[in-house]
Amino acid sequence: MATNPLAPAWLRLPADANVLADGLWPATAARTPQGELLIGGCTAAALAAEFGTPLYLIDETDARARAASLRAAFETEFARIGTSVHIYYAGKAFLSTEIARWMLAEGLNIDICSGGELAVALAAGSPPNRIGYHGNNKSLAEIDEACRVGVGTIVIDSPVEIGRVAAAAARHGIVQAVRLRVNSGVHAHTHEFLATAHEDQKFGVTLDDAPALVGRIRAEPSLAFRGLHCHIGSQIFGADGFAESASRLLAVHAALLDGGPVPELNLGGGFGIAYTSADTPTPIGELAASLADIVAAECGTRGIPVPVVAFEPGRYIIGPAGITLYEVGTTKAVDVAGNPRLYVSVDGGMSDNARPALYGADYTVRLAGRVSAAEPVLVRLAGKHCESGDIVVDADYLPADVSPGDLVAVAATGAYCWSLSNNYNFLGRPAVVAVAEGTPRMLVRGETIADLLARDTGVGAGSTTAGSTTADSTADLPKEPSR
Amino acid sequence: MATNPLAPAWLRLPADANVLADGLWPATAARTPQGELLIGGCTAAALAAEFGTPLYLIDETDARARAASLRAAFETEFARIGTSVHIYYAGKAFLSTEIARWMLAEGLNIDICSGGELAVALAAGSPPNRIGYHGNNKSLAEIDEACRVGVGTIVIDSPVEIGRVAAAAARHGIVQAVRLRVNSGVHAHTHEFLATAHEDQKFGVTLDDAPALVGRIRAEPSLAFRGLHCHIGSQIFGADGFAESASRLLAVHAALLDGGPVPELNLGGGFGIAYTSADTPTPIGELAASLADIVAAECGTRGIPVPVVAFEPGRYIIGPAGITLYEVGTTKAVDVAGNPRLYVSVDGGMSDNARPALYGADYTVRLAGRVSAAEPVLVRLAGKHCESGDIVVDADYLPADVSPGDLVAVAATGAYCWSLSNNYNFLGRPAVVAVAEGTPRMLVRGETIADLLARDTGVGAGSTTAGSTTADSTADLPKEPSR
Ligand SMILES: Cc1ncc(COP(=O)(O)O)c(C=O)c1O
Ligand SMILES: Cc1ncc(COP(=O)(O)O)c(C=O)c1O
Repeated sequence: MATNPLAPAWLRLPADANVLADGLWPATAARTPQGELLIGGCTAAALAAEFGTPLYLIDETDARARAASLRAAFETEFARIGTSVHIYYAGKAFLSTEIARWMLAEGLNIDICSGGELAVALAAGSPPNRIGYHGNNKSLAEIDEACRVGVGTIVIDSPVEIGRVAAAAARHGIVQAVRLRVNSGVHAHTHEFLATAHEDQKFGVTLDDAPALVGRIRAEPSLAFRGLHCHIGSQIFGADGFAESASRLLAVHAALLDGGPVPELNLGGGFGIAYTSADTPTPIGELAASLADIVAAECGTRGIPVPVVAFEPGRYIIGPAGITLYEVGTTKAVDVAGNPRLYVSVDGGMSDNARPALYGADYTVRLAGRVSAAEPVLVRLAGKHCESGDIVVDADYLPADVSPGDLVAVAATGAYCWSLSNNYNFLGRPAVVAVAEGTPRMLVRGETIADLLARDTGVGAGSTTAGSTTADSTADLPKEPSR
Repeated sequence: MATNPLAPAWLRLPADANVLADGLWPATAARTPQGELLIGGCTAAALAAEFGTPLYLIDETDARARAASLRAAFETEFARIGTSVHIYYAGKAFLSTEIARWMLAEGLNIDICSGGELAVALAAGSPPNRIGYHGNNKSLAEIDEACRVGVGTIVIDSPVEIGRVAAAAARHGIVQAVRLRVNSGVHAHTHEFLATAHEDQKFGVTLDDAPALVGRIRAEPSLAFRGLHCHIGSQIFGADGFAESASRLLAVHAALLDGGPVPELNLGGGFGIAYTSADTPTPIGELAASLADIVAAECGTRGIPVPVVAFEPGRYIIGPAGITLYEVGTTKAVDVAGNPRLYVSVDGGMSDNARPALYGADYTVRLAGRVSAAEPVLVRLAGKHCESGDIVVDADYLPADVSPGDLVAVAATGAYCWSLSNNYNFLGRPAVVAVAEGTPRMLVRGETIADLLARDTGVGAGSTTAGSTTADSTADLPKEPSR
């Protein structure tokens, strides 16, 4: 088949639409001799049979290795410039007690931004002082709880929070370590960044306002100022945006040293990953080296000591370690001005992956139950929701014989998929299963229809269909009639 | 204050930013003499105190009246052209057992598209034959269950479903009434519509393919063909798109009459509502009259009997009957190239209303706990999620003295807000409360942190914080320190 004019410019026609391209799939992903997708030593078919589809799968080995190697890379590079780093795993990307435990075991701290995320981190057994808490509008109850349990640091996001956190800390008789979130005016995404004087966004205070607010923080006996915090965006591929932001922050940081210690600098998260073969994020080791160089150079120019530097990656660690398994239900060939597109509908959709609908995000799909020598055709992987924008993969190539009953896997769904999942059309959210060394382990149970009806106060006793899962099994049904 | 250049072109500076503009708020919404928002005879403050914030409120009287008046308008207009109508309430907009009961009581049927929605409709006590079932990828289990319980009609969306539904019906010894979903090539939104030869979307078959597929349906002894079905879009303000679509469908409908009866025509949903004062949907009575005229004219031209006509409105019925109540936590003034914008952060966000993030949807916000004579300022109502795109109301005017602790209400959140709600950042979804004649009634309980941890298999016994809700109350906490 020639290149299809309907395909986006970035999408190349693959020689073989069965290949699991490097850097896109979890580290343990491979094909069995029969061509089946293998992840964590488990086959896609066995996992689908045991847990149903759709199914979120996390390659535990890969998730932990990504956490460990990121930490090692940053530790090495920042040791080179004479300081240390703290890595916080951004729980918003994907948090469960087990994932939090992995991150803690790999030496990371946990970055949270709500009372709910705090509850998960604590239920995971996280020492409270390894938790960092931010958010533009923490409730008074959340701030109180954070001080009560003794979280490590709280990021103050606005002037009014100085008094709120100070009062809560005083109430609990502690001195609370705090950071101040600033708007560096830099906003980065993939290869680009935008730098303005002031950012038009809800988070943080301006760099101009920071000195006076740090003065107010320092004047509060129940607060201990640790440093500035910023976060310049997400899915960032290069170091340029970080460089501009670090430079702006360190100018203020340097000025703050006149008034007292500023032990830390938190540069946030945002390290990008590959969702498709067209994505080219900078390797993490190179990024760590660049960031260390930038911080060293900026501190050198200003003649100030290099602070401890903190980062909060989420997507980089958990994104590529996760995939979603679906079963194909229907296919439909459409003709668009003479060009063919094959719609392949799966048993999930925008409820388990809202990112295409929310951000126009691209993904990669492959057959998971088999390989096929059929020629590659341009497909659009659609969900089963009643909405035409319910698309999981806008454009990729699959073997032309993809059919109802086929299992397909979508790569790099570990971050911000389960987190943003919903129950649109009363679809239950899929189970989350970790795989490692041939053994699957359920991390989060899938939702049943009974779960979805449980909070409805008008359900009479006995009228729910308890036990039937929405990720339904077709095992009891007669075989599919042939088309 | 003069018009702010940051305001979008459609947004007018109001003389009084306390006014509840006509057509935007639920029918019973009003202000008490003290200026508090009243809905269903309940004050905002009393509801917030009893149920916490954020809170979804549904004006029961209004929801039922909208259902009843829509039905009456269509019945009158289609009686005028000598036929009858069936109105299906599109459950995807907002479904709970109680809402389904209201719709059934007002003489509407229920339109569903999943096993979960079927379970809700049945739990509501809906007679199965008043349920219409569609979807582009119903699972075999869903189709089987639909035939087993005896739903009224199933919309066949693709060729493969003919055999699936026929087999399921045969298995249960019934003759299943079915419609065939076609792509009319018309896609409509607000005042515009696009008409192409073939639509590049996942739903339905082409009009060209319809006759052969209807032939196949008619050849199945366990299927009874009722007619064609289409749905041309959502939030549609005029009748033009429906006219084009009805014309195209009736051409095929007429041809199908040669092969047997075609008792019905289903034109789907999509009737628009006002989210802001700039929105000008056609009044429903006028729309019903236009649609009846179109159908009569098209049938007249073709010399065919006028079929029974079905519609599936969701948003029109439930959207304007719902509001969301929030509490303000922080405010922040930003300067954008010399122009002021006030960020007002509330205790919910993209988890309870994903439509701004998903569709760039606009909304209207007003103070709910009081009125204020302060001059109106341009605000952006932001949520509390860790994401800069977490915006509830992109642009509106509020009195300049809006402050932490203020209650605010966002209008027209009845449709596709709870439906698409998620647990991003482990925020529990708010409760849904119906109000009528001074009495609030909980329809769906809000989620607690314990609910959010309940499916996590790694939570040790006793480590969840059962009982604490995420819609936290600040009642036990000391008063807010003044800024
Ligand atoms: C403050 C902060 N830190 C860290 C992150 C994690 O970002 P990422 O997952 O892109 O690394 C986010 C994401 O929104 C954030 O807002
Ligand atoms: C087939 C069908 N019918 C009805 C509706 C309801 O649309 P609305 O809520 O805009 O009336 C939808 C919405 O997506 C739909 O897909």
